[in-house]
Amino acid sequence: MTTLELARDFTSMLKRHDHDGAAAKYNADDIVSYEAMEGPMAVCRGKASVKAKGDWWQANHEVHGGTVEGPYVNGDQFVVRFTIDVTAKESGQRMMMDEVGIYTVKDGKIVEERFCYLEA
Amino acid sequence: MTTLELARDFTSMLKRHDHDGAAAKYNADDIVSYEAMEGPMAVCRGKASVKAKGDWWQANHEVHGGTVEGPYVNGDQFVVRFTIDVTAKESGQRMMMDEVGIYTVKDGKIVEERFCYLEA
Repeated sequence: MTTLELARDFTSMLKRHDHDGAAAKYNADDIVSYEAMEGPMAVCRGKASVKAKGDWWQANHEVHGGTVEGPYVNGDQFVVRFTIDVTAKESGQRMMMDEVGIYTVKDGKIVEERFCYLEA
Repeated sequence: MTTLELARDFTSMLKRHDHDGAAAKYNADDIVSYEAMEGPMAVCRGKASVKAKGDWWQANHEVHGGTVEGPYVNGDQFVVRFTIDVTAKESGQRMMMDEVGIYTVKDGKIVEERFCYLEA
């Protein structure tokens, strides 16, 4: 499977809201995930740890809608852009998130994901 | 100057259509530029060589309009998304390009730019 094929299938699963399935299928066991924000989740190592971060996020946010654009592909990397209309449950604050993920592929798996937030 | 400050100023210059000024101000002397397409321009090394590539592109394309979104920032990297409504002068073909640039910053200069094209 080429990076292009992987990127298309992965992004198409995200467009169908199957984030869990996409991560289960394509995240490498030793994936490293980088958030833009500082704090304890800034760097997250390993497939199980990344899944836990995703589970935490889903449990603590209510998603009203959003868009997934991509994949944008070059070599062993691809980019997906997300907008998410979301309410943080604890604060009740509703916000529009606008971010991109840069994914790096090796041996048919995603070995790194790096999220970048709009800083306009 | 932080990567965030650089990314904001660089992107703001692109939004004002000052690509030449942005590249002159922020490209490192030893910048490496990666295009997604294959061919002689796939990898381009050095500020002068990257400028020559940009000059060639501008001379051979007529730009009708477009958008610049970003910057999306994380650590020493940032992403800018471009849509470009453009006609290739030689073929006369008008197309809507949709791409992102991943920029890597070191010591206040852009040392790598990698362009990724929409492969939906």
